[in-house]
Amino acid sequence: MAEPLNLDNLRVVLVGTRNPLNIGAAARAMSNFGFTRLRVVNAYEVAFREARSAVGAAALLAAAEEVPTVADAVADCTLVVGTTAVGHRELQHPLRRLEYGARLIRREMSPGNVALLFGSEKFGLSNDDLSHCHWLMRIPTRDAHGTMNLGQAVALCLYELVRDSRAARKVPVAVRPASEAERERFTTMLLDALRASGYVNPRTATSTTQKVRRLVRRLNLPARDAEVWQGMMKQILWKLNYHGGGQGGGNDQG
Amino acid sequence: MAEPLNLDNLRVVLVGTRNPLNIGAAARAMSNFGFTRLRVVNAYEVAFREARSAVGAAALLAAAEEVPTVADAVADCTLVVGTTAVGHRELQHPLRRLEYGARLIRREMSPGNVALLFGSEKFGLSNDDLSHCHWLMRIPTRDAHGTMNLGQAVALCLYELVRDSRAARKVPVAVRPASEAERERFTTMLLDALRASGYVNPRTATSTTQKVRRLVRRLNLPARDAEVWQGMMKQILWKLNYHGGGQGGGNDQG
Repeated sequence: MAEPLNLDNLRVVLVGTRNPLNIGAAARAMSNFGFTRLRVVNAYEVAFREARSAVGAAALLAAAEEVPTVADAVADCTLVVGTTAVGHRELQHPLRRLEYGARLIRREMSPGNVALLFGSEKFGLSNDDLSHCHWLMRIPTRDAHGTMNLGQAVALCLYELVRDSRAARKVPVAVRPASEAERERFTTMLLDALRASGYVNPRTATSTTQKVRRLVRRLNLPARDAEVWQGMMKQILWKLNYHGGGQGGGNDQG
Repeated sequence: MAEPLNLDNLRVVLVGTRNPLNIGAAARAMSNFGFTRLRVVNAYEVAFREARSAVGAAALLAAAEEVPTVADAVADCTLVVGTTAVGHRELQHPLRRLEYGARLIRREMSPGNVALLFGSEKFGLSNDDLSHCHWLMRIPTRDAHGTMNLGQAVALCLYELVRDSRAARKVPVAVRPASEAERERFTTMLLDALRASGYVNPRTATSTTQKVRRLVRRLNLPARDAEVWQGMMKQILWKLNYHGGGQGGGNDQG
């Protein structure tokens, strides 16, 4: 995505949709990702009316266009892409995976408009619908269960269009670890508590000390949490009546 | 994705889901992408029962586990990730975009199990649910309309996990263009038809010939279609009674 994408240049075209929930779900996903232009071809009149209540997408649905044919729905577009669950018929078109197809669509959306067609829940796009398409796009579902819910399919295609591949290449921010002084302070308090509670066997005290020191080092104690851990140990030591220090009292730094 | 991902190592955890359609939609998306392990925490009993009819996901739903608490749902996992629509509360966790978070989840799914938590439709995950999470993941919806439909959110997260970034980097296969001989053959036939139909003004015939030749070159006629175009022109010429050739007859190579 070298230049910003004009999301108004995509027309989401639902052909012959039967279920109002699916029209609503498509509209909601469009709104979630910032797309605006919805066209419904030959939808059940009732389905289209009932869809108008989709969460957060009322304005988008009110502006949706009802057109009688696919030709009307794609007339102002320079690229027409059909979506399909493969395998159910012989394809006369190039078939592209979503990851790749979306890149081609993005490229075309700079100078022109692109129509993205979704067929009915039961039958998908007809051969006649498909003949308006330049190529077809498929979501990489597994062969054994290829057909997706319509609302989910729309959401996936739109997500792939706005997906930021730079975000995927991000490098994890390292958590700043506690300093060795903080770690040793915590180790000492923990050892005091273990002695006070009878955990430490005096005959093996030296080896226990070393073992506990190693255990604490393996925890990757973050710098920001060191003080809270010390506060918790301090309170426990106070309750154990340990004589090394600490006045105790409520100390929840939660 | 250096090594193949074991999709059985992901637990999709739905917490407090109210709508059976959403449980069904989550199960269907899991099945579409090959995930198998669904856990529902504290779902409405009725919702869980009614969801069992989701298209193509009956087996997956039958194997789904009902557990009383989030702690039960994540017990066998080494990483617990919550999903959230940001902005509705102060976050105590690192928040990662889906593109990046999914990469970290994939990495963890090799040695261990990962739990991916989705909250209820109305309230999302509670602070108590979130306290079980190591970090949070958000789908990059726009600020003005951040909350997604639950079934769509599940589908997007799973898709990003199985997404193939190599597929996105694919280079378009060039369509083999027709040879110059084929292009010139078509040009000649088109000019014959234009002459026979009276389109060509004899006084400007030379310039028209050159113009038509350039027009045909700009069409990017593919090699595989050259013969069909010639067949169509041949038939038209026959009907125009053009004397240069052709016996005509039905010739639809569609």
